[in-house]
Amino acid sequence: MTNTSEAVRALATKGRAAAGVLRSASTTQKNDALSAIAVALDENIDAIVAANANDLARGKESGLTEALLDRLTLNEERIRGIADAIRQLVVLADPVGEVVMGKTLPNGLVVRNLRVPMGVVGMIYEARPNVTVDAACLALKSGNAVLLRGGSAAEETNVVLVSLMRNAVESVGIPADAIASVDEWGREGATELMRARGYIDLLIPRGGSGLIQSVVRESVVPVIETGVGNCHVFVNADADPAKALPIVVNSKTHRPGVCNAAETLLLHEGYGESGAILSALADAGVTLHVDGKARALAEEAGVDAGRIVDAVDADWDTEYLALEMAVGVVDSVGSAIAHIANHSSGHTEAIVTDSVTDANAFVAAIDSAAVMVNASTRFTDGGELGLGAEIGISTQKLHARGPMGLAELTTTTWIVEGAGHVR
Amino acid sequence: MTNTSEAVRALATKGRAAAGVLRSASTTQKNDALSAIAVALDENIDAIVAANANDLARGKESGLTEALLDRLTLNEERIRGIADAIRQLVVLADPVGEVVMGKTLPNGLVVRNLRVPMGVVGMIYEARPNVTVDAACLALKSGNAVLLRGGSAAEETNVVLVSLMRNAVESVGIPADAIASVDEWGREGATELMRARGYIDLLIPRGGSGLIQSVVRESVVPVIETGVGNCHVFVNADADPAKALPIVVNSKTHRPGVCNAAETLLLHEGYGESGAILSALADAGVTLHVDGKARALAEEAGVDAGRIVDAVDADWDTEYLALEMAVGVVDSVGSAIAHIANHSSGHTEAIVTDSVTDANAFVAAIDSAAVMVNASTRFTDGGELGLGAEIGISTQKLHARGPMGLAELTTTTWIVEGAGHVR
Repeated sequence: MTNTSEAVRALATKGRAAAGVLRSASTTQKNDALSAIAVALDENIDAIVAANANDLARGKESGLTEALLDRLTLNEERIRGIADAIRQLVVLADPVGEVVMGKTLPNGLVVRNLRVPMGVVGMIYEARPNVTVDAACLALKSGNAVLLRGGSAAEETNVVLVSLMRNAVESVGIPADAIASVDEWGREGATELMRARGYIDLLIPRGGSGLIQSVVRESVVPVIETGVGNCHVFVNADADPAKALPIVVNSKTHRPGVCNAAETLLLHEGYGESGAILSALADAGVTLHVDGKARALAEEAGVDAGRIVDAVDADWDTEYLALEMAVGVVDSVGSAIAHIANHSSGHTEAIVTDSVTDANAFVAAIDSAAVMVNASTRFTDGGELGLGAEIGISTQKLHARGPMGLAELTTTTWIVEGAGHVR
Repeated sequence: MTNTSEAVRALATKGRAAAGVLRSASTTQKNDALSAIAVALDENIDAIVAANANDLARGKESGLTEALLDRLTLNEERIRGIADAIRQLVVLADPVGEVVMGKTLPNGLVVRNLRVPMGVVGMIYEARPNVTVDAACLALKSGNAVLLRGGSAAEETNVVLVSLMRNAVESVGIPADAIASVDEWGREGATELMRARGYIDLLIPRGGSGLIQSVVRESVVPVIETGVGNCHVFVNADADPAKALPIVVNSKTHRPGVCNAAETLLLHEGYGESGAILSALADAGVTLHVDGKARALAEEAGVDAGRIVDAVDADWDTEYLALEMAVGVVDSVGSAIAHIANHSSGHTEAIVTDSVTDANAFVAAIDSAAVMVNASTRFTDGGELGLGAEIGISTQKLHARGPMGLAELTTTTWIVEGAGHVR
């Protein structure tokens, strides 16, 4: 047991005690804590921006890319946006206390399956300080204590944010230890979170595929795998062109860097308007990684040769997160299903079709978190599906699948009331 | 990649294909398969008993205990009992296809959260051949393919059982590969099940604490932890003696070898009838591992000195699974809660009390899969709580907590139907 291991476990133990208080906290008290955090952010914009400036300066020195620097940046507008998001969380229903199932058994036992907090939740994420607040507030609303490990590039910003949040929750009578960071122990802190089985009930990695896979492989604490999306759109022979083109373009280009963006397009060889789709993609700046038949369609449609490259095997398994798309031609719904079964990451797949039979066959066969029929893959999103807040999109089958809201940060317990009942 | 690794993954891949068929199989077809298995067991009793006799002979030679030999034994009566249990499974509702949540969004998207099978489930268990049939049939009913790893002591029996089940499912048009065993690769087969992430969706260990903990620690496949129960009964100062005594005795002695049997008794120092409880336990053959105050109560009540031993620290964390019980005296509900928080395995805790305030405080604070108020710990059971079949009792918080029925062997998928919807 190293010093870091002991320190992280000590922090988790304090978190467990705080979770004991949070478990019985009223929704009003938790909402008051959230409101206090929102106020603290609004009132301390200068301090947050100053700390963030130090992180940004260090990031520039160490050569972070523009994209990473952008994710790291907090300015007044963004901080006010984060505070507003917290206020939206206040109005969401509290999942804790829901009776998921209840009945009186023939022998008179009164049984309730009650929704309760997980306890202590760990979050491991990258240098995006908005996640620090977001994760802590979702945990708080669902009655959990949280241990945070953000990317070291955001270290100074996170110190300020965590301190503000701890003071805010304390101001309404919730122990400050409900929100804590292990950032001071760097990578070792992250490793110790993964080892702290029995101290931490659930670990959620948020970020790129590399981060998520390393947590999934290394952690002995239960993990929810989130957000790797090699999403497919299949355009059936009978698809309505007025639906197919916008769905493909939207799925790929609306926000290419997110997990529910489409990465592979499968075109039925009997679909007559494929050329128009490929042209529209190219016009939107998408580079097409094509198989032989798709190349013929693209060339026939006059797509700029600079936007066409031959697909290699790896393309079918690649999450580009960019204006790139693998394009293949298939001869049937069955072939599309088989391709998806081989290459999907289990996030979201879409079919565009007017055939009830084919839509049903696709829905029945696809083993992914979400299946879209005549809709963009971009709808796999907690906000879009009406869950309110979202902590991530699970691509695993255990516990939660697809967008995870507040309820997915809870567990249940059986409460059985008798009158001296024995077996 | 070893040969065993490749072989197990090849088997899992065949299981995945069979799961694709099972996923869309009707309830009627799955029930027909279950009925065919029940018939096959009834019609092949001699073959099963003969194979089992070989296992038993080998077990005796290798010095298995009487208890283990008993668990290993199949005779006509037990085989008919297993077949009857399958017929009870036939009448249970099929969890697959349940719409867990459904709504039409303001933008017209029709959203359903649909219950679907997990896919391929692995089971690692001890030399109890009834589990071979039980696990395969629960997986089948919930639409999953299953890979079985039973204890090597039951090897010959399991070969016959698996072969009968494979033929039975095939006779109704379900691929035989829906049920397969990795027993031929021995321990290495179990290890490879734990490594087959992406091939196996869920691994359930069933058996003793050592087996379960090793699977939890070693597996990179998602695991559901089952069945370790260091269950507590707390008798409050105001408990009704007519309820307290039977609840304690039933919790401890009704079936001492199972996970929902009580292991620790906490007596409020203000409860006046503790002596009667301790006498009743001793009369039922229970050895009491007592703290100082409990010793005084036991001696005062005239409990046979042979039934009293001083508790050591380890007693408070021990799952005896035998007629042994740790007994401590506490000064308040809060002390009982604190003791349980320190020592519980999170399975089941009971309070006997007539105080609404104390019962509510206990329920609110206890972080276990089940909490009993004025009822025996023995009620944490799928059958007793009305779930029908039970694959195990989860003591983890993720996915399933407490008794797991058929629904816990499924996951969900989001089906979103649009009319060309884009964001």
